[in-house]
Amino acid sequence: MDDADRDGGGDAPTGTAVDTDGTDADDGGALAWETRESRLDYSCPGFDVRRDAVRFPDGTDGEYHYVDEPPAVVVLPFTPDGSVVCIDEWRQAVGRVNRGIPAGSMESGEDPAEAAARELREETGHEAETLDPLVTVEPSNGVANSVHHHFVARGCTPTADTAFDADESIRPVTVDYATLREAALSGDLRDGRAVLAVSNYEASDG
Amino acid sequence: MDDADRDGGGDAPTGTAVDTDGTDADDGGALAWETRESRLDYSCPGFDVRRDAVRFPDGTDGEYHYVDEPPAVVVLPFTPDGSVVCIDEWRQAVGRVNRGIPAGSMESGEDPAEAAARELREETGHEAETLDPLVTVEPSNGVANSVHHHFVARGCTPTADTAFDADESIRPVTVDYATLREAALSGDLRDGRAVLAVSNYEASDG
Repeated sequence: MDDADRDGGGDAPTGTAVDTDGTDADDGGALAWETRESRLDYSCPGFDVRRDAVRFPDGTDGEYHYVDEPPAVVVLPFTPDGSVVCIDEWRQAVGRVNRGIPAGSMESGEDPAEAAARELREETGHEAETLDPLVTVEPSNGVANSVHHHFVARGCTPTADTAFDADESIRPVTVDYATLREAALSGDLRDGRAVLAVSNYEASDG
Repeated sequence: MDDADRDGGGDAPTGTAVDTDGTDADDGGALAWETRESRLDYSCPGFDVRRDAVRFPDGTDGEYHYVDEPPAVVVLPFTPDGSVVCIDEWRQAVGRVNRGIPAGSMESGEDPAEAAARELREETGHEAETLDPLVTVEPSNGVANSVHHHFVARGCTPTADTAFDADESIRPVTVDYATLREAALSGDLRDGRAVLAVSNYEASDG
């Protein structure tokens, strides 16, 4: 990316190596950084920024800044007839109304399934017959420690009241699943949580 | 989530409405916030935080903080025999080596395809015969304006030198696609960019 090349000139990649395990490497020693100090550098409603003093594998020292936020849940909620309860919500970070699915941060003491049921209820007024884990990911672990626990909810019916946060401008809207799937796969849907949930659900089912 | 209920008691959701369009709503007027001022509140290597003074739809005023970072690219790179060039990389935000795929921020003046080719080259030493857009998403637009442009690269061969950034601890590793796919769909892969790319590719192809 720039002229700072820690490896001193570009090693040949291990292009012919075949790893038999698709998961995270467990021999991280050669790549691991040592954290020498971690401190809160900034705080605002919703997240903090941490500034770590680190030692790189070559023994030199440096710093790394990243967003520190609580884990969150994302729910793909199906109605009994197979439609999906979506939400249209103003997203100030991107300056537009975003079509997505229920999501939000876990609260203190909650497990992911409890948070998923709560967010579904608060943001859409729906309650589910069943709630099953789909996949758990770190959406951008280069810059943030965010964790998104995705769930599939089935048999969702509008049996509860919504309860929006003070800074939530939300409208629930029920969308035909085939339409939502087409939007997620054609690139018409920008919301990454919804695209991941629909794509992963679709690929897992297929 | 708490007792602050902007809508004054929990309106019944429009649970029976069926929207014929899976994409973002275009009638955002009722949900839109007015941005009265936007200022830089914090800055560090990699991202800024902006603090916007906003007016909510009900006329009350408030503030919103979000991460401001450049758009990024993510590449799912296939070798001629159909394996995938992954990278194992230390991710300080989550304190472990992460198995993922090439990704990085776009540089000034680059278009997404140029950035994708550059990141593939720099992080893995590979060059692609073809590079096609897969999907573009905002991975967490509740807290950040991040945009991830996903690409599928085919015919990737190790014909270039790697060039790591000063704070990148990376090891390229070639993984059988079926293995990576299984890891993405079974939940064994934590990297959200890789899970989204594989799931979306799989669902689109299926």
